[in-house]
Amino acid sequence: MVFILHPLPRLNGKAQFRYTDAMGKNISSKHRSIGIVETKYYYYNDKLQLESGEKLGPLTIAYETYGTLNAAKDNAILIVHALSGDAHAAGLHEGDDPAKPGWWDDMIGPGKAFDTERFFVVCSNGLGGCRGTTGPTSVNPDTGELYGMAFPIITIGDMVNTQKLLIDHLGIAKLAAVTGGSMGGMQALQWAVAYPDQVERCIPIATTHRLTAQGIAFNAVGRASIMSDPHWCNGEYYKNNVGPDSGLAVARMIGHITYLSEQAMHDKFGRNLRHAEAYSWNFSPEFSVETYLQYQGHSFVKRFDANSYLYITKAMDYFDLGAASGSLAAAMAGVKARFLVISFSSDWLFPTPLSREIVRALRWNGIDVSFVELTTPHGHDAFLLEHEEQTQLLRGFLG
Amino acid sequence: MVFILHPLPRLNGKAQFRYTDAMGKNISSKHRSIGIVETKYYYYNDKLQLESGEKLGPLTIAYETYGTLNAAKDNAILIVHALSGDAHAAGLHEGDDPAKPGWWDDMIGPGKAFDTERFFVVCSNGLGGCRGTTGPTSVNPDTGELYGMAFPIITIGDMVNTQKLLIDHLGIAKLAAVTGGSMGGMQALQWAVAYPDQVERCIPIATTHRLTAQGIAFNAVGRASIMSDPHWCNGEYYKNNVGPDSGLAVARMIGHITYLSEQAMHDKFGRNLRHAEAYSWNFSPEFSVETYLQYQGHSFVKRFDANSYLYITKAMDYFDLGAASGSLAAAMAGVKARFLVISFSSDWLFPTPLSREIVRALRWNGIDVSFVELTTPHGHDAFLLEHEEQTQLLRGFLG
Repeated sequence: MVFILHPLPRLNGKAQFRYTDAMGKNISSKHRSIGIVETKYYYYNDKLQLESGEKLGPLTIAYETYGTLNAAKDNAILIVHALSGDAHAAGLHEGDDPAKPGWWDDMIGPGKAFDTERFFVVCSNGLGGCRGTTGPTSVNPDTGELYGMAFPIITIGDMVNTQKLLIDHLGIAKLAAVTGGSMGGMQALQWAVAYPDQVERCIPIATTHRLTAQGIAFNAVGRASIMSDPHWCNGEYYKNNVGPDSGLAVARMIGHITYLSEQAMHDKFGRNLRHAEAYSWNFSPEFSVETYLQYQGHSFVKRFDANSYLYITKAMDYFDLGAASGSLAAAMAGVKARFLVISFSSDWLFPTPLSREIVRALRWNGIDVSFVELTTPHGHDAFLLEHEEQTQLLRGFLG
Repeated sequence: MVFILHPLPRLNGKAQFRYTDAMGKNISSKHRSIGIVETKYYYYNDKLQLESGEKLGPLTIAYETYGTLNAAKDNAILIVHALSGDAHAAGLHEGDDPAKPGWWDDMIGPGKAFDTERFFVVCSNGLGGCRGTTGPTSVNPDTGELYGMAFPIITIGDMVNTQKLLIDHLGIAKLAAVTGGSMGGMQALQWAVAYPDQVERCIPIATTHRLTAQGIAFNAVGRASIMSDPHWCNGEYYKNNVGPDSGLAVARMIGHITYLSEQAMHDKFGRNLRHAEAYSWNFSPEFSVETYLQYQGHSFVKRFDANSYLYITKAMDYFDLGAASGSLAAAMAGVKARFLVISFSSDWLFPTPLSREIVRALRWNGIDVSFVELTTPHGHDAFLLEHEEQTQLLRGFLG
């Protein structure tokens, strides 16, 4: 099926589109889904050298692909997920609720920003995760037990090196683009620096080349919450009836506050009460924002592993792209990719000045970079929500 | 001893003073301490009507006073502490480390902003606290056991009504001023609205007339952390060997992040490691900001009760000064006090726009109000730190 994009006049400052088929008939967004997809697995039977000095392997890498790799194998786009994401970036798994497609379905599909009519889109679950790729919940071949805290400390660099194994396996010599938001953006940056000859374009979104003290602080409190939960049991909770669910839920609640802007929270919840007109005069969650956060915390526990949360946040804390070279500009000296850097006006977790540091280091090296700060009330989470604006930007950048 | 204040030229935009004795000899700040003080107790043997409809009593009110109440009893200033404060606002208790005076010692004493040569300064521990005033750790007269969660839900209004009992007991018909930062500022506002004839001047600092959704969210996560700690035991942990220490520590760590600005955290900690040059490659706290927060959390547990934390944060969430009247301006229609409202440029917990809402409602009613936003990197905690600037402002306002 062919999808034709028709730009419309901007509405309230936002880019508008409509899509039609070849006959000019309107096609709604949900009908431009990539459709039914499945997660695949690449088994790497050797050991990967980690930045810590440890080795880790064999590895399982869970991934999905959308679209078709062309004969020249030069139309691949690597999508990298954020902290809690997974390989399922677009479409539906067999039997899924059609209202709940992959995490970036608004951006990936026929005629969408990452147009699967043109590009071969790849997304893998990150190393250390708990959604198919090797992590603390995987079996440690040395013991036959789950790794738990025997899993080695990993880095953003190790995550990228794991993706590199997959990209090599798929026979892709050079990525047309690598992109991601938040921690996905960290990995996109790492790709451009670590494998300059294999990245044509780099699109780091709502990200940073290193966490600030405040960013580390939020991660540290999340980890403290998990590790001080008595059910954490030094990470050896997999055989128990209960894990550090409350510690992980609180960590997620903290994280969630940082993903939304103050304005977005105000607009969404204000001081509204969830179920009543008057105060309850007890400690049951009663403000809408309170019940929302409790829900986010409790539902996260069902789909995420607490040890993975520890390893992944630690990898974020350790990430400092310029450290080994003395400066970010020095680290980026060999970069060959063209860049589109996107930040969001109300993102206070990774605010715009952090993106400007990346842009400055790229410009210092004469690297081709476009930078856009999108005005949005949605805070850090905007990379998951502002698909119209991002679509327009990416369409231009991907040519 | 007489202290004479000599204003000096401003330095880096900050007000400077020197102090001398009557002979012109310089006196350093630490020598202007009020000296040795002691906490006193007022026992109120009746029951207090609470806003919830419950009654609570008898009450113990822990308080301290500095300076001398004059014959006209019109020189009293009520200082109201924030979430984790206590009645010990200035001076030293017998045997205390001289480097650790009361929590607002920089502001209260001879020749200081709240000049004890002129004013009779009163500070009491808030209702629901755990530092001498009746709270969850007090004995419930109905059972002979500690209240724990049998303590009723209290409000900012109830805290103020408790202070009113003390002020009446001290024979003070009208306060020359009532002031406090953060939750102390909420109570100062409540005083001016609830007892318009008893407040000459009101100085709310770094505060708000109601929490935003984000403010409620941070409190809610703190409470979730405590209440999901298995050692909380529905609040009945007083007879156990261990309480919800880790839950309370995490709550405090979250709070602490919100009290500092991103810039202050960056300036103080950056990405510095605490003990080493290189990463530890394990989960021990290693970034300076991480060990700092852990220390703050663990030391807080030694001096604060988890149930008090629940009750007091709930009181903050419930506070909405304009709700009953339909608007803040309507609530303030009867206010007679003159106001000095102070906010801090880098306070992102109770940012300046919240103070402007207070100022607007006062001006709407034609109430005399001065408003100053102090430029500081210190975030919400600036009310405890920026004593030179605040001193100059208060000196002018207190006449």
